[in-house]
Amino acid sequence: MTYAIGIDFGTESGRAVLVDCADGRELATAVHPYANGVIDECLPGPDDDVELADDWALQDPDDYVAVYREAVPALLAETGIDPAHVIGVGIDFTACTMLPTTADGTPLCRLDEWRRNPHAWVKLWKHHAAQPEADLVNAVAEERGEPWLERYGGKISSEWFVAKSLQILREAPEVYERADRLIEAADWAVWQLTGVETRNSCTAGYKAMWSKRDGFPGNDYFAALDPRFEHVVDEKMSRDIVPLGTRAGGLSEQAAAWTGLLAGTAVAVANVDAHVSAPAVTVTEPGSMVAIMGTSICHILLGHEPAVVEGMCGVVEDGVVPGLFGFEAGQSAVGDIFAWFVDRCVPPEEHEAAARRGLGVHAYLEQEAAKLEPGESGLLGLDWWNGNRSVLVDAELGGLLVGMTLQTRPAEIYRALIEATAFGTRVIVDAFRSAGVGIDRIVACGGLPERNKLLMQIYADVTGLEYVVAASKQAPALGSAMFGAVAAGAVRGGHNSVVDASRSMAPPSGEAFRPEQSASAVYERLYPEYVRLHDLFGRDGDSVMKNLRTIRASVEARRRNRE
Amino acid sequence: MTYAIGIDFGTESGRAVLVDCADGRELATAVHPYANGVIDECLPGPDDDVELADDWALQDPDDYVAVYREAVPALLAETGIDPAHVIGVGIDFTACTMLPTTADGTPLCRLDEWRRNPHAWVKLWKHHAAQPEADLVNAVAEERGEPWLERYGGKISSEWFVAKSLQILREAPEVYERADRLIEAADWAVWQLTGVETRNSCTAGYKAMWSKRDGFPGNDYFAALDPRFEHVVDEKMSRDIVPLGTRAGGLSEQAAAWTGLLAGTAVAVANVDAHVSAPAVTVTEPGSMVAIMGTSICHILLGHEPAVVEGMCGVVEDGVVPGLFGFEAGQSAVGDIFAWFVDRCVPPEEHEAAARRGLGVHAYLEQEAAKLEPGESGLLGLDWWNGNRSVLVDAELGGLLVGMTLQTRPAEIYRALIEATAFGTRVIVDAFRSAGVGIDRIVACGGLPERNKLLMQIYADVTGLEYVVAASKQAPALGSAMFGAVAAGAVRGGHNSVVDASRSMAPPSGEAFRPEQSASAVYERLYPEYVRLHDLFGRDGDSVMKNLRTIRASVEARRRNRE
Repeated sequence: MTYAIGIDFGTESGRAVLVDCADGRELATAVHPYANGVIDECLPGPDDDVELADDWALQDPDDYVAVYREAVPALLAETGIDPAHVIGVGIDFTACTMLPTTADGTPLCRLDEWRRNPHAWVKLWKHHAAQPEADLVNAVAEERGEPWLERYGGKISSEWFVAKSLQILREAPEVYERADRLIEAADWAVWQLTGVETRNSCTAGYKAMWSKRDGFPGNDYFAALDPRFEHVVDEKMSRDIVPLGTRAGGLSEQAAAWTGLLAGTAVAVANVDAHVSAPAVTVTEPGSMVAIMGTSICHILLGHEPAVVEGMCGVVEDGVVPGLFGFEAGQSAVGDIFAWFVDRCVPPEEHEAAARRGLGVHAYLEQEAAKLEPGESGLLGLDWWNGNRSVLVDAELGGLLVGMTLQTRPAEIYRALIEATAFGTRVIVDAFRSAGVGIDRIVACGGLPERNKLLMQIYADVTGLEYVVAASKQAPALGSAMFGAVAAGAVRGGHNSVVDASRSMAPPSGEAFRPEQSASAVYERLYPEYVRLHDLFGRDGDSVMKNLRTIRASVEARRRNRE
Repeated sequence: MTYAIGIDFGTESGRAVLVDCADGRELATAVHPYANGVIDECLPGPDDDVELADDWALQDPDDYVAVYREAVPALLAETGIDPAHVIGVGIDFTACTMLPTTADGTPLCRLDEWRRNPHAWVKLWKHHAAQPEADLVNAVAEERGEPWLERYGGKISSEWFVAKSLQILREAPEVYERADRLIEAADWAVWQLTGVETRNSCTAGYKAMWSKRDGFPGNDYFAALDPRFEHVVDEKMSRDIVPLGTRAGGLSEQAAAWTGLLAGTAVAVANVDAHVSAPAVTVTEPGSMVAIMGTSICHILLGHEPAVVEGMCGVVEDGVVPGLFGFEAGQSAVGDIFAWFVDRCVPPEEHEAAARRGLGVHAYLEQEAAKLEPGESGLLGLDWWNGNRSVLVDAELGGLLVGMTLQTRPAEIYRALIEATAFGTRVIVDAFRSAGVGIDRIVACGGLPERNKLLMQIYADVTGLEYVVAASKQAPALGSAMFGAVAAGAVRGGHNSVVDASRSMAPPSGEAFRPEQSASAVYERLYPEYVRLHDLFGRDGDSVMKNLRTIRASVEARRRNRE
């Protein structure tokens, strides 16, 4: 018997799973919440007088190490498995989540001298304060006709590596100067296991404009962004990009001590939570789109050919499964919108009614919302509470809800918010199809599908596609374990390719949701109205939504000047 | 010493005030809530299995009689004043609030045979189910080029007398047939006091298309709406319209027994809550607009000349003050929107925070909202939760809110809703001005101004006009008392005209809110965005908002067919 461990570094916690390399059976799971969670108001601990602006989101890298020290030993303790039988470890991470470190990988925020500077900390994927830098990245790329731009749907996100790095340079040049390395947290986490810095092809391809054929954009492009930025790749990053499925190295003595595993155990190069999920949910061929549905949605789709798709996050050759082009698209907030609604907009009466039924508020609202028919509330929303990733690539958009009356009830709004996110998915599906990338069905994983059947049915009805729910409740961690097994190789009881690993280790899919005719018919009438709002507020540079942000920014600037 | 009693029949209760005819001093007030309140889900009592559709709003006429029986005696008991010194009674009412009765004034809903038919009950002003009839009223009037149409801003509301009457005819012809009289609740309430049916010029002019010079529309117009409707004026109404300020009659023996007043006491012809407020808040001349701010807002403005103003509710010669043209405009929901928000959208944490400060939720949210600067929330709304009266005259419009983020807090939404209603007022002010009807300042009365200083300041900042708050907390009741004093006449210790009464009895205005320069500057940037949304969603017959209502209506129709 051989086993692999997969570790999924999420937004709020890290999750480790121990699986059987033969059949993918999950023997144990351990979750370790990050002590400092998402840092979005002020720095943690004694530095809480350092406040962060609205669009900031940081993390503490020590929270990641704590996952190794707490969750992995818990797996071994729970199962009693001999560490010698654990042949490989794989990890996946949110991305782009990045940090500045010294040459030996020490995060700058761990140093007394730098810890009070917010730019010394980990910038989490949903840190959106680098929009001005993203605007510059895009404007300069367009002006220069950079050929890589179309691989990213024509627009680079403020979430990505170059925008975040450039923000450090422009706002905290002393931090940029001190940083020997600027690195994805995914690669940093592998570095902590192996003691050796590696850079994986997935984050490099999807988040840092690297491609297998052309490498990174040229130094002259980076210089055009800022003369000090010219040599960022050579000085702070690396041109040595390692393909997914490679062994990054063996477990270091220190990491062995943290985890209880044997030194030398195979460690896979880092992966991204969404991309690593595809093999875990049986998807290693074109036609099935993976939807990782949680606080946000990430869509992964495979194709035999490259294609230009509006607003996709990226297309990377070998970026998900070797031999295929991996397309990624995304919705910046989904579960987050429902959580916002439940936290901030549900009155005491509804909480009490939920308690009387012995339900949580989400489950209660789902029950109530399920009693409604499509179109019955008269409400329609734009799901842009956290901006829009695909297809508009604009973090500065905001949410919209239209049609409220004095009779409108919370369950109606809750359903309208679910529908809005489903329409958001439909726009993405349509964009892929009109670019010639086929989608036959959607395989859903993440936290939302198992918890919310109404949501799954609405998504099926709105897209007209079958949604199947992945059997694994922890697809990223399982996928990471698969890559751990591949890092070890068949000769040690693992697998020689991720396609092999998926065939052996991915459980068959679970519940299926098929479009229901009469509901779909109403959504076919509502969807064009969604598209009208989408284009009206999202595509017009002078839209009310954009002007509101401009006005807000000038009010905030005036306030800062006064203070 | 002589006294007059004014009785204001509101949406939820009746309010009686006893005032000194010499100086308007308010000696006592008594409020009597309607036992059946607003009937908008099912009929009351044993008939609660009769359900009402969404847009319905009924009342029980016996609740009005209860105000006479409870509130008026309470005034006398509290003050100990000799009923012989009470020289006059005036009343005002919401409008158009109307009911079908027998020839002797018995409401049909009081009869066993009819009580289970919703059309036999009082249709409250905010009953909006007669929109198809209003559409017909407008279409036929436009087609025929009816000259009176422009007096009503080019469009008749579903709230008004002819639409409501036509709804009875079309949906319940048996009720229409049985009704000897179709009458404003205002006139019915005076009938209950005097035993004699009268019809006042204010409701006839503002709600039933009557004018001093031309009378009602012709029978051929009514016939064009429906052949059975041809003689509605002669058969169910009256062409004998009595001007405001007239004595309707003397108190009947029965009403004397109910109220404790002397039989024969002068009773004024009925008035409307908004219009009757003008003299009570010192407004008897052009230039000052009265804003009666409560669940909705009614705007009253005087002019020397008639004018065509987009979407105004009406212009009626002698409709407010004899010798002047009285203009009316309105916003269908204001306080109602804030109440909806507090009831349905404020989470337990905010309720608890309010309680910790010893505040109600409204007051707490106002404190929090006051900490924000204009434009800071990035939110903007359309205040159409109950449709739009002026200037669009479309009850089927819905609310809109744009700009939400995952950080948006309830106090930000609360402020955005206040601002949306202020922008709604600004549109009305602009419409009057561009029609040449000047506005120099606004005199505010009703429930909102005294409770919500932030709201008053926002309204001043948004309109750029000074708002002064009327000193009387109960302007309609005071205004009604003035008309009671006028019905008695100077010879009996009252007054000979409402201008005289206002000069003697209206208290000088209270707190003033002047536009604050820097806030106004931001609102000058936000207002054009509001106007864009307003025109986009309100003026385009194919707007998303209108299509949502169409889809909703077809879903509801399908459901009804299934049931």
